[in-house]
Formats: sequence, structure tokens, C-alpha cells
Amino acid sequence: MQQMSANLNELYAPIHDDLRTVERIFDDEIASAFRFVNELCDTVRSYRGKMLRPALLLLTAKACGEIRPAHRTLAAVVEMVHMATLVHDDVLDRAERRRRRPTVAALSGNTAAVLLGDYLISHAFHLCSSLDSQFASRRIGAVTNVVCEGELLQNAHRGRIDLSEDDYLSVIRRKTGALTAVCSELGATFAGADEETIRAMEAFGLAAGTAFQIIDDVLDIAGDPGEVGKSLGRDLETGTMTLPVIHCLANASVEVGEAVAGAIREGRNPNRGQLRGWLEEAGSLDYAVAAAEQYVAEALTLLDPLPPSHAKQSLVALTEFIVERRT
Amino acid sequence: MQQMSANLNELYAPIHDDLRTVERIFDDEIASAFRFVNELCDTVRSYRGKMLRPALLLLTAKACGEIRPAHRTLAAVVEMVHMATLVHDDVLDRAERRRRRPTVAALSGNTAAVLLGDYLISHAFHLCSSLDSQFASRRIGAVTNVVCEGELLQNAHRGRIDLSEDDYLSVIRRKTGALTAVCSELGATFAGADEETIRAMEAFGLAAGTAFQIIDDVLDIAGDPGEVGKSLGRDLETGTMTLPVIHCLANASVEVGEAVAGAIREGRNPNRGQLRGWLEEAGSLDYAVAAAEQYVAEALTLLDPLPPSHAKQSLVALTEFIVERRT
Repeated sequence: MQQMSANLNELYAPIHDDLRTVERIFDDEIASAFRFVNELCDTVRSYRGKMLRPALLLLTAKACGEIRPAHRTLAAVVEMVHMATLVHDDVLDRAERRRRRPTVAALSGNTAAVLLGDYLISHAFHLCSSLDSQFASRRIGAVTNVVCEGELLQNAHRGRIDLSEDDYLSVIRRKTGALTAVCSELGATFAGADEETIRAMEAFGLAAGTAFQIIDDVLDIAGDPGEVGKSLGRDLETGTMTLPVIHCLANASVEVGEAVAGAIREGRNPNRGQLRGWLEEAGSLDYAVAAAEQYVAEALTLLDPLPPSHAKQSLVALTEFIVERRT
Repeated sequence: MQQMSANLNELYAPIHDDLRTVERIFDDEIASAFRFVNELCDTVRSYRGKMLRPALLLLTAKACGEIRPAHRTLAAVVEMVHMATLVHDDVLDRAERRRRRPTVAALSGNTAAVLLGDYLISHAFHLCSSLDSQFASRRIGAVTNVVCEGELLQNAHRGRIDLSEDDYLSVIRRKTGALTAVCSELGATFAGADEETIRAMEAFGLAAGTAFQIIDDVLDIAGDPGEVGKSLGRDLETGTMTLPVIHCLANASVEVGEAVAGAIREGRNPNRGQLRGWLEEAGSLDYAVAAAEQYVAEALTLLDPLPPSHAKQSLVALTEFIVERRT
């Protein structure tokens, strides 16, 4: 996790050793007898950045009780599911860089990237099935169903300049929020939390994930490519409607609105500086960040009832990090 | 199953009602609240052709004991896994027709096809996790790991004109044989068969699947496009080495060998009639069919110890159908 900020390293202190174990479980699961498969997996490992989802699962577990072996397995499962979506997203978005490195699709071709994503999702379910009960397999399966539906929904909405905020939120709740929600839900469940706490933690993960995606979409427009480390400006290029753009289309001057709509219709990326200027002028970036801050506030409220602990402090800080991050 | 031959309909008589139930379980599982997702699923449903894998699972179950509810669920699971691989294969092969209809990739674009394949694989695992025990989830997860490895292996071998028969067999055992093996294994297991019978049925499914893939590869070269109903000649175009081609490269005259190798290197499809002529001249099609017949003979021997029954007769006929089929 060499790319991790000093800030995150500090937050992760309560789960430092557990995250090492999660990395080992992840690596053991995807190891193959074939050298070239392992080489592809090395590329995936190099994507491993902030490990937010495993951290969310483990910190919720610790804040609700204690970390048990099933938590570490599940943390590896959710990271593997996430990696699979990244690998397939890069095929779909034709992205060339991820975590400052060339993507699998750019390095080894789209075919290898589709197959590698399939390999990861298969291993995620296989790893999950190693647990004693079916409970987690059912929850993970139900959630990946929703994530796929969210991705299909996003794809169906491509280029729809009349997309509403509600439609956008409905997509990101599915494609991103569902997975973060199940992280905190399973963290709480396998720590033996009561039903009310489990439902609160699920809602916490959903709100945090929704905020995370809104900021991700803002960074795609306004982030510094050197800092973010992945291909930016892809959303407009692929016709993916995001909150700042939806706000801009509804609130900017007729000229700016038409310029942005025209860029989406033509499926080309206008000068990012120009786009950013338009969105800033319309207050659309501030609007999106404010929306993310509201979700963060909702998430923090849901953490309130948990007893004080180092893990809870980290969960709070991790949630605040979502809107402060620049990568 | 309107496309099914009268011959297969007869074979399927012992499991006719069960297959109807499997179709219903399949449809219920992939139904979405979103209309456009269901429209994509309709395309997948139209792929549903011979339902060989569900039939294999159910007939093995009945030949080893009786069909139980878990068998019908598992039959839908293996069909869903198979459909997911078809949808992703069509992206990778850039195929335009499957079961006489345009592919999802050709109809709705590669993005929708990648996502739809993901949706199907996720639902397959979700459906599998509805069973009481983790056993089937573990077996299905382990097998899809192997199938993905086989696909990755095949991709890594693209254009390798020096590929050996063993390398080819190693690929098809993984990408096709592993799934048919688990069909008959789970059929026997959930019918309460003893360990020896389960292992024999697993070996039977592996041999039958291997024969099936060899014939599939022969049909890609020598099949009648009108009868087969899917894009043909793709293997040579995508540099996928198959048994007749491997045999031809090793046994044909220098001129023919160089022409075939040249076509593979350039990644273009020579006149199918010409290719077929070359392979016939070198005895390569007969060689491949004979190899498939050997696997069929091996598979039939493994069925011998089963007690006589209508289901066993159907299993025998289904296995013989593998090399007789023209579609």
C-alpha cells in the first residue's frame, strides 16, 4: 500500500495487521498454476490502492465488536469484487491509466481484461463460499446483482442529457453504494451486532459510498491527473452523466448549457480546463461537493450510537476523508 | 426450445417437466425491475438452445437415483454460467450471430454484452447460494475458476502455430470439460450416489464435454452456417488453435501448412471452402472426429456400471449425439 497517504495509514492503525492478512488471503486465492495468469494478477495487485472497502468492513467490525476470521475473508472478497468491476470498467471506458499505471485493457488487450475480470469475480464467489454458512454468499450475490444492474442502468443512460438527479443517484446507489453498504453490514453482522445496529451500519455504508462516488465524479472533471493517477475526463467522453454536469445543464446559461450538451452528444471530451471553468461558473462543482457533504453528514449521524473506540474514530475520519480526498 | 431437434426431444422425455421448471427458475432469477434489463435478458433467453448442460445434470441425477429440488436449481445455475460465457465469448470473438440471431454484442454493443455477462454470472452464484449447503457453491466457484483459466489460457495461445495437441486439450478440458464434469458430478452427488459413482460421473462429464468441444471446433470449420446458426470460421480469424488445424500443420504438405500458418499469422479467415479442402486432404477433420469418438467411447464406458433405466438410455444417446450433431 505504498501509494497510501500518511493520513490513511494513521486511520488504518486499528486494522493494520488485519489488512496485511487480507492482502495475503487475496493473493493466495487468485494465485494460479499458470505463470501468465499470475502476471495478469500482478497488474491487478498494483491497482490495490486505498483498500477502502476492506477497511470499511474491518473498522465497522471492530467498532461493533471484534474482528473474526470471517471478516478478513470477506474483506478480501469485497476487494476482489471491486477489482473485477475496475478491470471491466476499464474495458468499457477504454481507460489507459489506473493508479498511475497502464490498465490491463491497455497492457494486454480487451480480451484479457474481460477474462481477468471474470476470473476475479469467480474467485470472489469461490472465496466467499469457503465460509461456514451461506449467509455471506447470499448477501454478496444479491449485492453484485444490484451492482451489475447499476452498471447496466448507467450504460442505458449514456448520452441522456435530460437525466435527472434522481436517476443519477439511483445509478450510483446501485453501482457503488450497494457494495460499500454490504461491507459495513457484513462487518457488523459477523461481529454479532444486533439487528438495529446492522441496519444502521448498512445505511452508513450506503451513504458513505454514495458520497464517495459523487466526489469520484467531481474528480473526473476537476481532479489533478498527476494526483488522481488515473485517466480523467472519461465520463463526458463516454456520455456518462454525473451530478455536476446534470446541475450545469439545468442551471448554466443557455450558451454554456448548449456547449456542454453538444460535447455529450458528440461523445467528445472538451478541453478539461474549459469544462471545469463552465461548471465552476454555474456553481456545479460546489453543488456536487455540497451534496456529497450531506451524505457524509448522514453517514456520520448513523455512526453516533456506536460506543467510543479507536475503530469508531477511524470510521469517522475515513468518512470525512471521502470529501477531503484529492485522489 | 423450439430449435431442438425431434431426436433431442425424445432423449429429454424422462426430464421434460423438470426442464420446464429449470426454465422457470432461470427466468425468475434473472428478472429485473428494469424493463431494459429484461429486454437484454430476452436476447439471452433466445440463445437457449439445446440445454445440454441442464439435461446432463438432470439425466445423471435420474440415472443415479431421483431428481430433487436442488437439481433443478443447479441445472438453472449451470445454464446461467454457460450463457454468461457465451455472452462474453461473443464480445471477445466479435461474433455477430448465435443460435440464428444477432448476438448481444452485435445488437446492444460490447459494453452491454460485458455487463450482461457479469449480470448472469452474478445471478448464477446468487441462485446457487439459495441452496441449503455451501457444497454446490464451492464446486461451482472452483469450476468457474478453472473455466476462466481455460479461457485465459486459450487467449494466451492465440496465434501460436506451434501449439501441441496436449496444450489444446488442456485448454478445452478447462474451458468446456470442467463445466460438463461438474454437471454430472452434482447430478450424482445430490441424488445421493456413492463416492465411486460420483467420481465416475465427473469423469464421464469431462470426457463428454471434451468430445463436445472438439466437434464444436470441427463445425466452426466444416459446419453448414445455415444449420449451425452461429458465426463460423471465427477460430482461425481470432488465432484460436483447434485440433484439426494443429493436426493439419503437423501433417499436411509444406505448401498447405504454410498457407494455413500464414492465414493464422495474418489473423484473417481464408475462404472456408478452401480451408475445409486443405484439412480434408490432410485427413485432419477425420482425425479430429476420431479423437472426439474416442472421448465418447470413454464416456460411454463410464456409464456402464449404472443400473438400466430410461434416463441412462437417454444419457447414452445424448453422449452419442455429441459426435453425430450438425449444429
